[in-house]
Amino acid sequence: MKIIELNKSITESNDEDARKLRERLTAEGVLLINIMSSPGSGKTTFLSKTIADLKDRVSIGVMEADIASAVDAVRIEAAGAKSIQMHTDGMCHVDAGMTERALQEMEYEGLRLIFLENVGNLICPAEYDTGAHLKVMLLSVPEGDDKPLKYPLMFSESDALIITKADTADFFSFDEGKCVSAVKRLNPDIKIFKVSAKTGEGMSSWEEWLSLQLPQ
Amino acid sequence: MKIIELNKSITESNDEDARKLRERLTAEGVLLINIMSSPGSGKTTFLSKTIADLKDRVSIGVMEADIASAVDAVRIEAAGAKSIQMHTDGMCHVDAGMTERALQEMEYEGLRLIFLENVGNLICPAEYDTGAHLKVMLLSVPEGDDKPLKYPLMFSESDALIITKADTADFFSFDEGKCVSAVKRLNPDIKIFKVSAKTGEGMSSWEEWLSLQLPQ
Repeated sequence: MKIIELNKSITESNDEDARKLRERLTAEGVLLINIMSSPGSGKTTFLSKTIADLKDRVSIGVMEADIASAVDAVRIEAAGAKSIQMHTDGMCHVDAGMTERALQEMEYEGLRLIFLENVGNLICPAEYDTGAHLKVMLLSVPEGDDKPLKYPLMFSESDALIITKADTADFFSFDEGKCVSAVKRLNPDIKIFKVSAKTGEGMSSWEEWLSLQLPQ
Repeated sequence: MKIIELNKSITESNDEDARKLRERLTAEGVLLINIMSSPGSGKTTFLSKTIADLKDRVSIGVMEADIASAVDAVRIEAAGAKSIQMHTDGMCHVDAGMTERALQEMEYEGLRLIFLENVGNLICPAEYDTGAHLKVMLLSVPEGDDKPLKYPLMFSESDALIITKADTADFFSFDEGKCVSAVKRLNPDIKIFKVSAKTGEGMSSWEEWLSLQLPQ
């Protein structure tokens, strides 16, 4: 596992860089997914479970973005995927230039599915195209059902929403119907999955959908 | 309850503005506290409980900062404090200019304790001095004990850490000793309180400390 420092992009034309990176990865038969959420929503646990379930069928890599520390990349390696830790040095998001550099450093040849685990933040990451083909956001049950009202851009921009920590639903007053209605008002086409990476509940529906997104 | 749009500061000299605002509030006998955390850590529930417990002894106001929606300000008014909703229009933090404008709009004469509930974000709000006298951060048990390693600036900058949702500790593998050690390494002087706003556990220690911070 490598750790690289990425505190600014080489270029400022982020949208153009993102478009080029996406086209290159498509041509190479690689699917790149940008995973976003609040701190502590369970991104790493969710990815570890997904990797454990799919690693025998598809070669997976994970780029872990964090301000500091390498705790997530260590967990991902233990789950059985190739990983690289990106340090953003205080920056609240990842952009296309940083993603491209991390991909190069990871030596991704042979991988078919790559997750970019973005910095834990419901605001800034929604504003930057990383070059990923799909944006998947997580919202954990303990965070509450009002988050779509408060962070609308993230919910509007995402292709899929994973409601995580579903096993804690009895403990928290999370109104799933209210949450889903608010999300669908912002983004009628979003795919929604409710899972618990701890019990395995709902993981197969997500993994089935994910498998259909892979390049043939 | 007013709702005001605040998407940029009138001035860029934030540190100087913050210093002046703090001095003015001190002279007026008002304590301003900046409350920060991830989305869904329980800031509004924690403040509502604090208000319910202290409102007969001290006059309290709350400035609620959010990208969109007014759900928090409505809850705070129901708890019995004067409130104003600030909309940051996508911005990930609040600065001193925005705080000063919100204070003016709130007509804070007669209040002795004012909370600024910052945007839910563990990164950007740590970087901006709002003019508050104290910075108080929340970390909820469901978020996990590794957050000090991943968001060090927020933990370094805060005067107090409130570990929230303590009633869910049996449900999540949250190692309090490990968390507290990591926090103390970053910030040896930080005050730490563990509370559940739901059961009331730990609230009196926090409220006692808070009362001691009030201007005499």
